[in-house]
Amino acid sequence: MTMSMYQASVPVFQARLKALAHCLEKAEANATERKIDPAVFLSSRLAPDMLALTQQVQIATDHAKGAPTRLSGRDAVRFDDDEKSFGELQARISRTLDLLDTFTPDEIDGSEDKAIEIKGRTRDLSFSGVQYLLHFALPNFYFHVTTAYDILRHNGVPLGKPDFLK
Amino acid sequence: MTMSMYQASVPVFQARLKALAHCLEKAEANATERKIDPAVFLSSRLAPDMLALTQQVQIATDHAKGAPTRLSGRDAVRFDDDEKSFGELQARISRTLDLLDTFTPDEIDGSEDKAIEIKGRTRDLSFSGVQYLLHFALPNFYFHVTTAYDILRHNGVPLGKPDFLK
Repeated sequence: MTMSMYQASVPVFQARLKALAHCLEKAEANATERKIDPAVFLSSRLAPDMLALTQQVQIATDHAKGAPTRLSGRDAVRFDDDEKSFGELQARISRTLDLLDTFTPDEIDGSEDKAIEIKGRTRDLSFSGVQYLLHFALPNFYFHVTTAYDILRHNGVPLGKPDFLK
Repeated sequence: MTMSMYQASVPVFQARLKALAHCLEKAEANATERKIDPAVFLSSRLAPDMLALTQQVQIATDHAKGAPTRLSGRDAVRFDDDEKSFGELQARISRTLDLLDTFTPDEIDGSEDKAIEIKGRTRDLSFSGVQYLLHFALPNFYFHVTTAYDILRHNGVPLGKPDFLK
C-alpha cells in the first residue's frame, strides 16, 4: 500500500491525542495525590511569554481537527476556548477524536495539490495540501503536544517517553 | 503528485533541523550577550530526570538520520555523542543535513511495507516502514526538537514559533 494523505494525518492525530489524554489523566491523578490545585498545572507555562498548558491542549486539538477539515474541504468546526479543568480538556480531546473518526480515506486522499489558505495573525499563508500537512499542521501539532508534555514533566508529573508515544 | 515516503521524511527532517540550527545560533548569541557560560544552556533540562539540551539535539539528529537510513536499507551511520559546545552541535546537525542530501526519492519511496526492527533499551520493536516513520521516527524526532526549543525558551532565549517553523 502506498502512503496516503489520510494515513499521514488522521491516524497520526488520533494516536498522539490519545497519548495526550493519557498524560493529562496521569497529571490530574498526580495533582490529587500531591494535593495540588489542578489549576496550578493548567495555568503552568515554561516561560512567561509562552502559553499555558490549557492553551497548548486547545491549539493541539485545533490543528488535529483543522488539518483533515481543510484537506477534505469540509466546513471548519469551531470549539469555544473556555476549558477550565482537566475534565473539560479531556472532553475537548474526545470531541476532536469523535470528529476525526468521521473522516474517511476517500475524503482526504488525493488532496496533495489542493490549495490551502491559512489566515494568520500577522500574514496569510498559502500551501499545497501536502506542504500544509507536512510543514505546517504536523509541526504545529507536535509542537503543542510536546510542550504540553514538557510542562507536565517540568511540574514533576511522573511521565516518560512511553507515555508520549503510547 | 502522490504523497511519498521520501516526501514525508527527508524534506521534513531537513526543514526542522535547519530551524533547530537557527534556534541554537540565536541561543549561542544570547548566551554571549547575557554573559552566560554556553555550558549552562547546553546542560539545561526541564526536569531532573529529563535529558539536557545537548542530548535532545543528539537524539533529534539520530532519528533524522536513522529514518531514511533504515527505510532505504543503507548501513547505519553512527555519530559519537561527544559534543561539548554549540559549535559541535551545529557540526552534528550539518553532518546530518549532508547525509540527508545524499538520499534520493528512489531509495526511500516504496518502503511503506518494509520490515523495520528497532532494538530498544527495554524491548525490540517491529514496524512496517510507514508505521515506523509516522508512529515512531517522526514523533520521536519532533519530541526532541520541540523539547530543545522549550529548554531554550525556559532559559529566556528570545525565540518564537516562527523560529521553530522557520
